[in-house]
Parts: sequence; structure tokens; C-alpha cells
Amino acid sequence: MSKALPSRSENYSEWYNELVKKADLAENSAVRGCMVIKPYGYSIWEKMQQTLDKMFKDTGHTNAYFPLFVPKSFLELEEGHAEGFAKECAVVTHYRLKANPNQKGKLMVDPEARLEEELIVRPTSEAVIWNSYKNWIQSYRDLPLLINQWANVVRWEMRTRLFLRTAEFLWQEGHTAHASAEEAIAETKTILDVYADFVENFMALPVIKGVKTENERFAGAVDTYCIEALMQDGKALQAGTSHFLGQNFAKAFDVKFTDKSNKLDYVWGTSWGVSTRLMGALVMAHSDDEGLVLPPNLAPIQVVIVPIYKSEEGLQKIDAKVAEIKQKLQKQGISVKYDNRDTQRPGFKFAEWELKGVPVRIAIGERDLENNVAEVARRDTKTKQSISLDILIEQIVNLLNEIHTNIYQKALAFRNEHITEVTSYEEFKEVIETKGGFIKAHWDGTTATEEKIKEETKATIRCIPINFGKEAGNCIVTGKPSPQQVLFARAY
Amino acid sequence: MSKALPSRSENYSEWYNELVKKADLAENSAVRGCMVIKPYGYSIWEKMQQTLDKMFKDTGHTNAYFPLFVPKSFLELEEGHAEGFAKECAVVTHYRLKANPNQKGKLMVDPEARLEEELIVRPTSEAVIWNSYKNWIQSYRDLPLLINQWANVVRWEMRTRLFLRTAEFLWQEGHTAHASAEEAIAETKTILDVYADFVENFMALPVIKGVKTENERFAGAVDTYCIEALMQDGKALQAGTSHFLGQNFAKAFDVKFTDKSNKLDYVWGTSWGVSTRLMGALVMAHSDDEGLVLPPNLAPIQVVIVPIYKSEEGLQKIDAKVAEIKQKLQKQGISVKYDNRDTQRPGFKFAEWELKGVPVRIAIGERDLENNVAEVARRDTKTKQSISLDILIEQIVNLLNEIHTNIYQKALAFRNEHITEVTSYEEFKEVIETKGGFIKAHWDGTTATEEKIKEETKATIRCIPINFGKEAGNCIVTGKPSPQQVLFARAY
Repeated sequence: MSKALPSRSENYSEWYNELVKKADLAENSAVRGCMVIKPYGYSIWEKMQQTLDKMFKDTGHTNAYFPLFVPKSFLELEEGHAEGFAKECAVVTHYRLKANPNQKGKLMVDPEARLEEELIVRPTSEAVIWNSYKNWIQSYRDLPLLINQWANVVRWEMRTRLFLRTAEFLWQEGHTAHASAEEAIAETKTILDVYADFVENFMALPVIKGVKTENERFAGAVDTYCIEALMQDGKALQAGTSHFLGQNFAKAFDVKFTDKSNKLDYVWGTSWGVSTRLMGALVMAHSDDEGLVLPPNLAPIQVVIVPIYKSEEGLQKIDAKVAEIKQKLQKQGISVKYDNRDTQRPGFKFAEWELKGVPVRIAIGERDLENNVAEVARRDTKTKQSISLDILIEQIVNLLNEIHTNIYQKALAFRNEHITEVTSYEEFKEVIETKGGFIKAHWDGTTATEEKIKEETKATIRCIPINFGKEAGNCIVTGKPSPQQVLFARAY
Repeated sequence: MSKALPSRSENYSEWYNELVKKADLAENSAVRGCMVIKPYGYSIWEKMQQTLDKMFKDTGHTNAYFPLFVPKSFLELEEGHAEGFAKECAVVTHYRLKANPNQKGKLMVDPEARLEEELIVRPTSEAVIWNSYKNWIQSYRDLPLLINQWANVVRWEMRTRLFLRTAEFLWQEGHTAHASAEEAIAETKTILDVYADFVENFMALPVIKGVKTENERFAGAVDTYCIEALMQDGKALQAGTSHFLGQNFAKAFDVKFTDKSNKLDYVWGTSWGVSTRLMGALVMAHSDDEGLVLPPNLAPIQVVIVPIYKSEEGLQKIDAKVAEIKQKLQKQGISVKYDNRDTQRPGFKFAEWELKGVPVRIAIGERDLENNVAEVARRDTKTKQSISLDILIEQIVNLLNEIHTNIYQKALAFRNEHITEVTSYEEFKEVIETKGGFIKAHWDGTTATEEKIKEETKATIRCIPINFGKEAGNCIVTGKPSPQQVLFARAY
């Protein structure tokens, strides 16, 4: 392996970039702003996908697939939506290249193959999907429609960062249609709960549920619900959003249904998504200066076993014992890798699996075999213990649970220490500069104040929390009345 | 449900289009040439994906994800590849829209946001992937690289058909890199076997393995291996291809490695893919004038249960028994749907599940309960029998296997009846016009003869079969010597 990572305290941003690359999660491609998700990184994303997909299906959703391209005229139909996405979209204007007559071996756009109407590479699919829903929905009997799509989307970001902000990213986008506002809002909240459940119980990352301000709302939504998490550098990261669309897209695309009393009305909608951005959150939330710390529930390899041997004969004995252990662990649903490469020393392997965040490492030497023990090291605390082979399997099962709980609790304690309540703008500015994290403060509810704070401190309102801060007070900037506290932070 | 399907004999093409739509598999979208894969269709595709993904992983492959966009200059690097794809690609030229000053509420391409270099929406990913492999491969120790990607691709087809030929489609594309030609060729063949295994044992569709002629080869490949299947109208369908790329892409992208003897050489490559086109094959191969006939191994619903009742009390009794049966079937890994809608009559439900191709239907009435039996109908033969509830579960398990075998055998018999050996061009023309199917004939190996036959008969060489036709003879058109017979057909 090449040289060590920068430390987090030294340069958090560089630490993140280097870690993502060195741990083989992703790299920048030659295509501006687009990343390559490498096999190890993709295997984590696959676990995320499988888990979320099951959660969506368990809550009654099915998958479908809609076109990559959005005709320009569709994007125009919902005004707020168009404004939100027009500035950052990849536009297909032609459908053919031809040989360049002036440069042998080179291609050029064929000017005769110009599209009548430009196509936008989807930045999100509301427009295309509601255009289909128009034909799928006539009566209340056709509702609700509960559909999800796993897809790639493109938003032409000028400043990109692996996983956190890329021109192309992978995500899922749910798009549902309902017969009433109440039902649509309930769906929005159901999904917010699914997301929170996933991030907390699989990513081991605590989240705060809230509602976005008008300014931070999804382009085209009536309300945007979100979950916000805190990274180790004190910056917030929006981990998922669930939008109540009201009848906005139904009106834009003329999607009506006859209700039970035979009255015609516009359909109510929601949309919701999480993306490969979660990979960035996963890395930033738990990892340390030695590398990734993966939560056991998403680690592609949960246990790695490294043999320590001096002779071929010794190795053979270890091999036999490991085969047995491996099989027993797999029977418990645990993914195990036996790293018996003869090209690398144990120390190198230890460092490599530490870098890659494997939660549990088992080392077995010839003497261990004689003593009927193995050395078990956990990635999160970097502690080691010798465990009798008689109880190894159950201990590992317990240990994986313990690691999940430990990294969750650690992130929770850090997050809770970094929610600071302030009562003045001075204090606000002081905290944002020195301590970072979330700031709980009263705000007068105006976009003007929100923008002023953002401009002066780079902090934005992450959300109006759902579960706390409900007491009334006065805005820290204007002194005007405020019905409840909101959460500010600098954010990714 | 709306009016019946056209019959296959009446209009096979219309029958196919209508069936795909009526069975809720897919529909055309408002975006030219792009389809919407509807939930029921997508659930079949998901089963295909899961099955293939496991097969790829079991043969040592991992998944990754590469950018959607291919810079124009990358496409130019491999000459044959560029020629093959330049004529039918979606070209991104701009990265921003802006408000149209002349038309309120309308958007226009921002002329100031022109890309320096045009980006092609990937028609396939060799170029982007080999450009990455350049940085991943230095030594033989980095080889083989065995990577697959699940993705969408775009080829600007002028005449499109749901699943069979669409501008955007979903697929998997494997891209592997090897230290020797032998190893790369072995990989190509391993994948061909995986594809054949999948199509025969999951899609219940027999295939012929072969090699493409130079004319039909993948743009940029040294050799293209393929599996070819026969549809009910006597036309062939290429179900999957596996390409030996030689060192073509390694040379174009300068991908070299040092071998064990420290010598520098270009890397050897393969690529291979199957797509949502397989959905079209699945529909065309087995279905009948009443609707889909799905092979049990890919049917999202394998068993549907319909209650036949006259009273609420009767329904309750049936409900209780069905809950028990359903649980037992699910324990056997069988997917079951209980269609207890009170808005539709049994006859309607029977027709609907017939249209949707559910392999087994169980109907249970009040009298059946008294007699401890159920009526079991199979979709493939449309036969029914009364089965004692005591042996129902094991009978269903057997029946699903039997249905797979039956539809495979039926397709195999049809296919075998439609391989006609001819010794003259006259006979060839006669067979292609009247009987259709595959024609086994000698060919002189020249592109000129191949093109002449294609022009005069619309038949192409589907493949040079691997497992038969090895005797030498004389070309049916030119009389020149031919080392072995090849397979012709009209094709999708």
C-alpha cells in the first residue's frame, strides 16, 4: 500500500478524498464530474440497495423503469421544477456523429441530425413519470400508485466531490399518487421513517427528522421532509428527502381521477429519494485516521481471517481449522473472507483490512491452534482479545452487534454534544466558527433572515425539527416572534 | 379488461405489441424510442437480474459502475468501435437551459453553456472502462479484472419495438481484462455458457451457441460468440453475446502490463452482455393467444389462488384454508398471490391471470372445502384437475417443475422442426419464404455472398454453430468450398 492517509485533524477534506480512493470505493473519471464506483465501493452500495429495496417492498411499493430523457417541454410544465433544474442539466441536441471530413479518424456532430426538441438527461423523473401517470390513472380504484425506480441521474454541478456531489449519481426515486392529501402526507412520512430506520439501523448513523424551509424545499414540492446527520467535522449532511408534492405535478400534467362520489379531482403526489451520497455519509461518519470503519450491517466483508504461520505444514493445519470456522460463521449469515495470500505478510494484511473497514479481524497462528484460541480484533475500538475456539462463533455474532451499537452510540454522543442552543446572533456566529455542529435557534420564518444568516455565516437552516424545539421565542437576528426553534449548520 | 388479443396466426407482430401492453409489461413513452417498463414487467426483469447476478458472482465477477457519458475523443480511439456506434448515438452538447426571453415560461438551450467536447450517452462502455483500466493495471498481479455493470444504454434506433429494439434499454455489460489470449477466450466461453444456462434453465428457451461472421461481429471485437433462439413466428433472436476483444481496446487505450517474466505486453479483453431484449424473447417464445405463458423460474407470481364463494361466511372458511396453503407454499420458496378482490368475478380473475401468464392457478370453492380438494389449472396446457388438499403442496412443487420442462420441450421441438438443411439456393429461398426458422447451409465464407443472400432473402447468418454442422461442403450460392455449415434466419 502507498503512503498513509492525511489525518482528520490535519485536513478533513483531504482525508476524505484520499480515503475514498485508497479504500477502493471510488475515483474520479476522465468525464468531468462523473465518478467510477469501484468494486469494493459498489458492493457496499449493493448492500444499501438490497436493504432499502426490501424496506420499500415491505411497505407496499413496486419498482418500475422510466426513460432517461426528459423532453424540454415536459420540464417547462411545472414552473418551480423548471427553475430548479434548468440551470444544471445535460442537454442532448443531436442523435448522430459523422466522420470529420477535415480530420481523418475524428468524429463530429452531424448537423443534419439535430433533434426537433432537445432532450434533458433526467435530473429527477417527476416530469416523465407524471406524464405516464396521466394515462394510468382514471379512477380512485387506480390509486394509490406506489412506484420506485433505481436509476442514474445527472445534475451539472460545477464543484464536485466523490459521492457527495457528482454530476452523475445513482439513486432511487419513489413517485406515488394518491386520492387525498392526507394519504399523500402519510406516505411522505412513512418513507421518512423508512429512511431514518435505514440510516440509523444499517448505517449506524443517528438522524434528525425535520421539514425544510421554503427556501430549501425541493423544486416543485409543497413540503420537503428530510433526515439530517452530522459528520465528524461538525458539518451536516442531508441524508434523504421525502416530498409532499400536493397537486402541483397533477395540475402540470393534467392527472385527474374520479373519486368515490364520482367527482373529478387532481391527484395528490409524493416523491422521495436517497442516493450514492449516502456512501459519502457512511465514510465521513465513522471512519478514522487508519481508514474506513464500516457498520457491520453494510460491510461487504464482516469478518476477515488472517493465518499466521511459519511453515507450510503449519498453514495446512490453520487452513483446516479456518475452513471449519468460516463455514460456521457463514451459517450464521456472516460474510467471511479468508486472506491466505502468500504474497503479503500479516502486518500488511492487517493494515489493508483496517483501511477497508472490515469490522472484525481474526488472526490464527500455530500456537493459537495448540491453545485452542484465536486473536479477535475489532476495527471500531482497535482492541484485541484472545477467544477460545469453543465459543468463537457466538462471540463473533455478539461482537458484530456490539460494534454496530458502539459506533452508533459514538456518533450519537458526538451529534448530541454538537447541538448547541443559542439565544443571540453573536453566540451563533461564535459557535459556528469554533465548535460547529447543529445550532438550535429561533428564527422569524422569513427567507430574508435565512439568506442573511447564510451569507454572513455560511450556515443554512437544515430543518425545522419534528420532534423537539417546539417552544415559542424570538428570532436571534430580528427579535421577531418565532413559533419554534430550527436547526442551523454548515452543510455538505 | 379490454378486448381480446389479436391471434398469433392473424398478426404475430400486433399480437406481440398488444400482449406486452395488455399484460402490463411495458409501454411506449412520450420520449421517442424510449419505453416505460411497468411494475409487472419490471418484476420479471428483476428476477432475471437477480439470477444472472448470482451466476456472474459465482463465476468470480464483481459489479462496479462507470460513467454514463463517453467523451467523443474516447469513442474515436478504437476505429471499428467508432464506426459501429457513431451513427446512432445521443450527443450532449450543452449543460444548461435558460429562460427563453421571447416566450414566457419556456426554456431554451443556453448558447453560452456549450461543452468544449461533446459527450456521448454510452451506447456501450468499452471506451470509458478501458480508459479506467489503464490506471488499474500495471502488472500480471492486477489481472484478471472480472467486472460487470448493470446499466442503461442508448442507441438511437430509428425503428423501435418494445423490449426488442428501443433507443434506451437496460442491460448488464461485463468487461474483463486478462494476461493471455487463452484466458480471455476461456472467459468469453464461460460467459457464453452462463448465458445459455440462464436462457435454457430459467427462460425455458433452447439456444444454439455459435460464433458470428465478421460482418455481424461486435464493433471492435476479434470474435463474437452468441446464443440464438427461435421465436414462434420462425424468426431468430440473438439472446446474448460474448466478445473476445483481443488486444484492440488495450491498444486503443494503451493498457499494458508486465508479465511474470517482466516483459511488457498489451492486456487481452472481453466484453459481454444481455439486455431487456430478453424480455421480448420471453414473451415471444412461449406465449399464446390468451396471453403470456411465463416459465415458473421467472414468474413473479408462480401460483395464484382464487376463492369461489356465495356467502361472506363461505369466504371466511376459504380465507382460513388459503392462509394455510399460502404459508406452506411460501415455505417451499413459491411466490403466491391470493386474489380475494371483491370487485371482480372469478371468470374475470381467471382471464386476467391467464393474460399475465401465472403458471398455476388454484381455485377453491365452498364445496371443494367440504370435499377437501382444490381445482388446479396449469397455464401452459390449460388443463385442470382436482387435487386433494392433503397432497396439494407437493403436487404444486412438482407441477412447477413439470411446467418448466414442458414449455422448454415444446420450444425445443418447435426449434428442432425448424432447422432445415438445404443444399441449393433455390431450396433456401423456398424454405425462408414458406417455413421460416433456421436454415443450415454451406457458405463460402465471404462477406459478398453473405450480403447477397441478405439482400435477396432478408436472411442473415445468425451464427457459425459450435456444436454441429462441421462437415465440409460447397456454398449454396457460389459452389465454392465451405469448411462447415452455418445457420441462416430472418431475425429480430
